[in-house]
Amino acid sequence: MSFIDLKNDLPGIRGLMAYSPHTAKPLNELAEVLLRDEHNTLSRGERELIGAYVSWLNQCFFCQQVHEALAGHYLACPIGELDQIFDNLGASALPAKIKALLFIAGQVQTGGKSVSQDQVDAARHAGASDREIHDTILIAAAFCMFNRYVDGLGTWAPADRGYYVNRAPQRAIEGYIDFDLYK
Amino acid sequence: MSFIDLKNDLPGIRGLMAYSPHTAKPLNELAEVLLRDEHNTLSRGERELIGAYVSWLNQCFFCQQVHEALAGHYLACPIGELDQIFDNLGASALPAKIKALLFIAGQVQTGGKSVSQDQVDAARHAGASDREIHDTILIAAAFCMFNRYVDGLGTWAPADRGYYVNRAPQRAIEGYIDFDLYK
Repeated sequence: MSFIDLKNDLPGIRGLMAYSPHTAKPLNELAEVLLRDEHNTLSRGERELIGAYVSWLNQCFFCQQVHEALAGHYLACPIGELDQIFDNLGASALPAKIKALLFIAGQVQTGGKSVSQDQVDAARHAGASDREIHDTILIAAAFCMFNRYVDGLGTWAPADRGYYVNRAPQRAIEGYIDFDLYK
Repeated sequence: MSFIDLKNDLPGIRGLMAYSPHTAKPLNELAEVLLRDEHNTLSRGERELIGAYVSWLNQCFFCQQVHEALAGHYLACPIGELDQIFDNLGASALPAKIKALLFIAGQVQTGGKSVSQDQVDAARHAGASDREIHDTILIAAAFCMFNRYVDGLGTWAPADRGYYVNRAPQRAIEGYIDFDLYK
């Protein structure tokens, strides 16, 4: 179903990673350090929310569902409520800091040059640290890569959103380093 | 000069990587495997050309200069000629396969959903293997990340293009894994 024969039936980036384990390794390590590293003042839920939001902006169904389900799991928030946040970020009741960071992530999605010093200063004024601003921009940039990889090769994705919600708790335990993939 | 205080004066992604070594590690490993891995039927010059072209499309001056200089070094081609290729890819005298792959890379730059089965089939018809198409799409996607990281944080870049041309031969020897960075 993808544009090339991946020699497997796995959906989304999982099919690509099984096809190409040697490139999957640094990609998974990047996801692990960005989204799960414990030495980070942004929670795992907040970081997954940034990834889901950028994937939603890029209309990458697979990545959006995987990471929105994880954000919902970590933040104990139904994905329907997260949908509403994405639809109207400005009107959402999110704390000012994460709202300012999501706004910057949205700018990164349109292009690196869309981010301005004023937007960064606004996030800082809302309580974001330099490290949090850095990590937000790199997470958003990384999802612009993951989304393009997944859709650029025409991978398939389960249409049922429940599939992703049901998998999220186990994924939250296992993380992104899939050691079996590299055996 | 960047939007946050990076605690160093290094240009472009080098300043970001010195600021954040733990995220630099998988980023450098990704660049190394994508652009330099020896088990690849695309030459290092061809792969650098894909990265430079996407950076040019994203108007990321630092990344364009670094990778265009490297492509010029590997391909023994002055950067002025590479500029002309970027300006009018269709009219260039590049071999059909790399031209088709650069066209796909340009589609990835606009978004993953811009790539179509027809474009992939055209590249295959021009002699590209599935692996080469996969790698082209992932390289292009990765530069959409690197470019956004570099410009999204407002890093500075030397304006003199000779700076990058002069550094390219040594960078071609050293590669992207900077072990000193992680000491």
